[in-house]
Amino acid sequence: MRIALGIQYDGTAFSGWQVQTQQATAQQTLERALSKFIGAPVLTTVAGRTDAGVHALGQVVHFDTDVTRRDFSWVRGVNAFLPTSISVQWAKVVPDTFNARFAAYERTYYYVLYTHPVRAPLLEGRAGWVYVPVDIEAMRTAALHLIGRHDFSAFRSSECQAKTAVKHLYAIDIVSRGQFIHFRFRGNAFLHHMVRNIMGCLIAVGRGRHTPDWLAQVRDNGDRREAAPTFMPDGLYLARVAYPPEFDIPAPHVAAFAWSDVWDA
Amino acid sequence: MRIALGIQYDGTAFSGWQVQTQQATAQQTLERALSKFIGAPVLTTVAGRTDAGVHALGQVVHFDTDVTRRDFSWVRGVNAFLPTSISVQWAKVVPDTFNARFAAYERTYYYVLYTHPVRAPLLEGRAGWVYVPVDIEAMRTAALHLIGRHDFSAFRSSECQAKTAVKHLYAIDIVSRGQFIHFRFRGNAFLHHMVRNIMGCLIAVGRGRHTPDWLAQVRDNGDRREAAPTFMPDGLYLARVAYPPEFDIPAPHVAAFAWSDVWDA
Repeated sequence: MRIALGIQYDGTAFSGWQVQTQQATAQQTLERALSKFIGAPVLTTVAGRTDAGVHALGQVVHFDTDVTRRDFSWVRGVNAFLPTSISVQWAKVVPDTFNARFAAYERTYYYVLYTHPVRAPLLEGRAGWVYVPVDIEAMRTAALHLIGRHDFSAFRSSECQAKTAVKHLYAIDIVSRGQFIHFRFRGNAFLHHMVRNIMGCLIAVGRGRHTPDWLAQVRDNGDRREAAPTFMPDGLYLARVAYPPEFDIPAPHVAAFAWSDVWDA
Repeated sequence: MRIALGIQYDGTAFSGWQVQTQQATAQQTLERALSKFIGAPVLTTVAGRTDAGVHALGQVVHFDTDVTRRDFSWVRGVNAFLPTSISVQWAKVVPDTFNARFAAYERTYYYVLYTHPVRAPLLEGRAGWVYVPVDIEAMRTAALHLIGRHDFSAFRSSECQAKTAVKHLYAIDIVSRGQFIHFRFRGNAFLHHMVRNIMGCLIAVGRGRHTPDWLAQVRDNGDRREAAPTFMPDGLYLARVAYPPEFDIPAPHVAAFAWSDVWDA
């Protein structure tokens, strides 16, 4: 029987999903809890292998098991063995044709950027930060150069193991809310460090260090050294993974609060 | 010359403002950074001595110094010596009649409570959590019993050092937003663990373990053992300290984001 799980985690607690180090990874931590719950080793397949410091709101994994439990028993039972930095949000029996990685046709990442002269301790690890204003219109114009099917070699890290750098980026949406700028990246798949490298380039354009058209040139030349430095992981969230409707995979439950929505200043 | 500072910190990084332990306190950390910046020892006086795990959005301190700097130089200079878990938000020269502790006439605390069957890793340390629904109207009715000038002995910790347990609680506002319940406590001053102990009692009422009128009885009997257990510090924030207008103390800059305000579900 194949089970799919919706997973959330605080990326600051892990050295990525599966990076090989002495530090805890989200995959190791989840597989250990699953094994304890069912009393047998478990191997998971994941939708998006997030990097160290990158958070997940809507990560999806699947695994195979002979053990039968009610959906919410998987949630409650596995969570009892997990630290507070990671949790199972939902569980669901899926057909064997489902694969968390290969059945996904779209991945959505959010990046949250805080723009203010002074850093905010309660946003540390949760939002990127620039202490100068950035030009949103310039960033939007630059981002258009990356939409579509392109070779993203200029935006992949040297450690990237993907077979091809050709990916299809469906959309980059950029929205301003108070002193936050919210970015949403939607694509069929992403290379290692791709969103953080694109963020570095967009911010370079937003700060006026390059024109928006520079990004087309970086894309065409395909040379990582021409792009801006990799931007901090703090504000990056794997928000959602989309699957064909026949699998009926639940949407992630994203919980966040802002006091401005509640109390007068 | 007397300088006032607006301070924010992530309470999970400190064992409170000034608790005496081997672990770092916010006060030690701030005073060490101030001393490095001006090259001389600095002693600060604080508006609210927050407990371990309690966050500050609008903490205020003052100190005396002969050193002259522009307001924003204090901010930038001291922040350069502070870890990312704490920062100076503003600095201002104030008259010697200002005292961060004794000139304050009102303190505001926020408590954020997440109500959902499954815990959210990205809210860990930032919001309290109950996995069952709670009755907001019952909590509002119970809270009314605490408004006004009362002896709050039933809600003070055994370690509380305040001379008197008589405090004036001006308001407890309770607002529901999605799966969050936001509490706002406004009073002239608060005893050690007072907000967390009141939160424990309100949640006991909200879960139906006690009637709203039980809280009047707990208040009148003044016995800590009759009240509910101290609730977790995770969702507690010192939001604002109010001073007479002649001191012209800046309002805190509170930065938080919610994706529901930005992206469709």
